[in-house]
Amino acid sequence: MNALPLSMEPTRLPDGFIESLRGVFGERLHLGEAMRSQHGSSEAHFDTILPDAVVFALSTEDVVAAVKLCGAAGVPIIAYGAGTSIEGNTTPVNGGLTIDLSLMDQIVRVNAEDFDVTVQAGVRREQLNEHLRDVGLFFPIDPGANATIGGMASTRASGTNAVRYGTMREAVLSLRVVTPDGRDIRTARRARKSAAGYDLTRLFVGSEGTLGIITEITLRLHGIPESILSAVCSFETLSGAVDTTVQAIQLGVPLARVEILDDVQMRAVNAWSKLDYPEKTTLFFEFHGSERYVQEQVETVSALASDNGGGAFQWSSLPEERARLWKARHEAYYAAIGLRKGCVGWPTDVCVPISRLAECITETKKDLEAASIPGPILGHVGDGNFHVVFVIDPNRPEEAAEAEALNRRLVQRALDMDGTCTGEHGIGLGKQDWLVAELGDAVDIMRTMKRAMDPQNLFNPGKIFSL
Amino acid sequence: MNALPLSMEPTRLPDGFIESLRGVFGERLHLGEAMRSQHGSSEAHFDTILPDAVVFALSTEDVVAAVKLCGAAGVPIIAYGAGTSIEGNTTPVNGGLTIDLSLMDQIVRVNAEDFDVTVQAGVRREQLNEHLRDVGLFFPIDPGANATIGGMASTRASGTNAVRYGTMREAVLSLRVVTPDGRDIRTARRARKSAAGYDLTRLFVGSEGTLGIITEITLRLHGIPESILSAVCSFETLSGAVDTTVQAIQLGVPLARVEILDDVQMRAVNAWSKLDYPEKTTLFFEFHGSERYVQEQVETVSALASDNGGGAFQWSSLPEERARLWKARHEAYYAAIGLRKGCVGWPTDVCVPISRLAECITETKKDLEAASIPGPILGHVGDGNFHVVFVIDPNRPEEAAEAEALNRRLVQRALDMDGTCTGEHGIGLGKQDWLVAELGDAVDIMRTMKRAMDPQNLFNPGKIFSL
Repeated sequence: MNALPLSMEPTRLPDGFIESLRGVFGERLHLGEAMRSQHGSSEAHFDTILPDAVVFALSTEDVVAAVKLCGAAGVPIIAYGAGTSIEGNTTPVNGGLTIDLSLMDQIVRVNAEDFDVTVQAGVRREQLNEHLRDVGLFFPIDPGANATIGGMASTRASGTNAVRYGTMREAVLSLRVVTPDGRDIRTARRARKSAAGYDLTRLFVGSEGTLGIITEITLRLHGIPESILSAVCSFETLSGAVDTTVQAIQLGVPLARVEILDDVQMRAVNAWSKLDYPEKTTLFFEFHGSERYVQEQVETVSALASDNGGGAFQWSSLPEERARLWKARHEAYYAAIGLRKGCVGWPTDVCVPISRLAECITETKKDLEAASIPGPILGHVGDGNFHVVFVIDPNRPEEAAEAEALNRRLVQRALDMDGTCTGEHGIGLGKQDWLVAELGDAVDIMRTMKRAMDPQNLFNPGKIFSL
Repeated sequence: MNALPLSMEPTRLPDGFIESLRGVFGERLHLGEAMRSQHGSSEAHFDTILPDAVVFALSTEDVVAAVKLCGAAGVPIIAYGAGTSIEGNTTPVNGGLTIDLSLMDQIVRVNAEDFDVTVQAGVRREQLNEHLRDVGLFFPIDPGANATIGGMASTRASGTNAVRYGTMREAVLSLRVVTPDGRDIRTARRARKSAAGYDLTRLFVGSEGTLGIITEITLRLHGIPESILSAVCSFETLSGAVDTTVQAIQLGVPLARVEILDDVQMRAVNAWSKLDYPEKTTLFFEFHGSERYVQEQVETVSALASDNGGGAFQWSSLPEERARLWKARHEAYYAAIGLRKGCVGWPTDVCVPISRLAECITETKKDLEAASIPGPILGHVGDGNFHVVFVIDPNRPEEAAEAEALNRRLVQRALDMDGTCTGEHGIGLGKQDWLVAELGDAVDIMRTMKRAMDPQNLFNPGKIFSL
C-alpha cells in the first residue's frame, strides 16, 4: 500500500550470527513468524515487513552486545518500544534484527527535589505517571498511545500538553545511548542547563534510532498543580475556535492543554467513548495553577470564547470526569478508525505558524468535504499542529491513493505557510520526500552526520532519508 | 597566562588569498594590527592572539564567499560578534581569518502574531528589545554583556530569565547557517515544533562556530507581561536564600528572574553602580503576570523568604527603578573587576542540580574565604547555575595559578554533584579538559561530527576539544 519500494526479501544472515545472538539472549531470542510479524507491523497504513529475528533486551549491556554482533555481521538493527509510531518508523525495511526494549521498564531514580527522573527506555508514559503521583510530580508529554519513553524520545513526540510544557525536545535532560561503534555514552549531566559542547541530547531526540539506541532517559518533571480544571466548549465556526486560542495565548494565558476536534471527529469520539457532546467544532481545555489563578484564566478564556461564537463552557474539576474527557481525547485516533469497520488509519501531521492555522485548517476542511473517505480533524491548536486521520479500506487501493493525494495537498499547503511536514510523528518512511521539500540542502548535512556515525548504515536503515 | 599551548606563529597565508579576499570585501578587509588585536583579545583572562586578517560581512553571501575562499586556501575562519564571550571562544589560536558579523545588524522580520522574529547574526540583544517594545513583545535571554544574537546562539547563552523562559536552546526556532562546504542552509521552518529529521538547530546552537557560521536566527518571543514587579531581599544565610528559591519553584511559582549575589558581589555592585544595598547575601527577583497573579506570587515568595531568614522585600514596579536594578545586575561582572584597579576577570561557570546548590555554593565560599584574591559569587539560582569571578592582577602569574586551582576544585565539586562544567559560557579554550571529565566518550562522538562536517578543521579550530 506504501509508495516506497520496500524490499520483502529476507536479509541473508551470516553464518553463526543466530548462534551468537542465542549465546547472549537465550530464550529472549525469537525467530517465529508471529513474533517477527508483530514487530514488523505498524499502527498505521504501512505494509508489514518482517525482521529476521527479534531479541528482548534487559539491560544496556544487552544492547551493547547486540549492537556489536550486528556491527561485526553487517546486520541491520532496529530498536522497538511499544510499536505505536505511525510513520512506519520501526518497519525493518531491509530485515535484520529488531531489538525490543519493552522489558527494560525500570524507573531507575526519581529526584523529586530536582524535578527529574531517570527511566529505562521501555517505561511507558502511563506507568511513569502512576509512579510519580505519590511524590506530587508528573510527566506531561502524552502522545495518544501509551508509548514507551524511549520511543517518544526517538520520534521527538509531543501531545496535548506541549503548548505549556514543551515536547520531548524540552523534556529530555540527558540520554544514555549505545552508539553504532558499540559505545555506551551519556549525553549530558543532570544540571538543568549546560553549554558543554555539542547538544548530543537533542541530536538523538528525534533521530528515530538511526544514530544509536537510547537505553535510558532522564526527564524533566513538573509539580502536579494545586488546581486543575478541564472544560469543553463548542463553536459555531472553526475560525472562532482557533481565534479564541490564539487570543488567549497572546494575552499570556498559560493554557495547559487546548485541543481542537472538528464535527466529524466529535461524532467519532461520541460513538467510540459513549459520550454525548454536540457534534460541532469543539475545544477541549485544561487549566493549571493555584485556585485563584485558574479561576482568572478561566474568566479570561470564557470571555474570549463567547466573543468568538463559542457556547457555554462545560467545566470539570473532578479527577474522574477529567480522566474520562482526556481518555476520550487520547483515543481519538482509534475512534476515528472506528468510524468504518475493517479499516485502517492514514494519519497526517502538519504544524504551521499559529497565525496561519485557521486558514490552513479551513482550506483542508474544504478538501475533506469533497473527498470520498472520512477524514476527521484533531489538533494541538496552541502549537499550530493538527492531524487528519483518513480512514481507509486496506482492500481498496484507490482509497490509499486518494488519502495520499489529499495529504500531498495538505503538506504542500503547510510548507507554503512556512510550516513543517511533521509536528510530532517523525519522518519514518512516510515523509521522506517532504523532508527534502521542507529543508533542502540541510538534509545533506543530516546524511553527512548519519554516514559519520553509522558508516555501515545498520541503524534503522531506510528511515528519515535515503543515503 | 593560559595553560593551553597556543601558537603565536602567524599562519602562512597562501599566495593570492589576501587579493581574493580584497576582491570580495574591498575596504571591509583589514590587515592593520589594531583591528587584528581587537579581534584577538577577550573580555576575560585569555592571551591575545592575532588573526591574520579581519573582514566585515554585510550579508550571508559575503559569508559564503569568505568560507569558500578559506576552504580553497586552507585558512582557518573564526566568526566574531561583539567579542564578549569569556572562555576564549573567539581567540584565533591558529591565526587565519576573523569574520566580523557585527555589521549584519538588520532585524529581518517581526511576526508579532506568531511571537517570533528573524534577525541577522550581528543584532545585539538590547537593540532587539528596543525594536520589539512597540509591538508588546520581548526577547528574554540576557547574558550580562550586550552580546550579538549570533554569538549568543553559538555559545548557547542564557542569563537571568532562563528559570522562566529557557536559554538559547529553547529560544532559537531556526537558523540560517553557512556550512564548511559553503552551503547556505536553513535548519528549520517557522512552526513552533517539528519532528522533521535531526535537530540541526540545536546542533548549531552551542557549537561555537566549529561546525558552520550562523548568519540569521529566528527567535521565539514573549508578550511583555501586563504587570512586572522587581524585588530585592537580603538574607542572613546563603542557604536561606537558596532554600527560598527552591521552595518557590517547588510550589510552582513561575519566577521570571531570581538572582543570587553574595556579600562580596553586593559590595562590588554598590561601589560600581552607586547603590546602597545591604552588603549581605541577596536575592534579586522579578515577577511577571497579570496584576492579580503577580500579587499572588509575591505573597507566596515573601512568606517563604521570611521563613528562611530573609529581610523585608524592597519592591519596585516603576520601569526606571527596575531598569536601574537590572542594569546593576548585568554589570556585576564589570563591577567585580572594578574591585581591584588594573585587574582582569577570571570567570567560572558551574551548574548543578538545584538540590545540591546550597551545598555547592557553601563549600565554594569556604574556599574563597581562604583565598588571597577576591572572588565574588553571583548566580542564576533558579537554574542551579552560579559564577565566581576571580579578580586577578595580570602581572602576577601566581594569582592566575591560584584562580586556576580554585576553579579546579569548584568544577570537580560540580561534576561530583552530577552538574556541568559550564552552564552558559561554553567550552572555548578554558574548559576542554573538563568537557572530557564531564562527558567521557561522548566527546568522541562530538569529534566524529566535527570531522565529518569540517574535514579540514578550519572552523574555529582548537575550540571545544582537540582533534
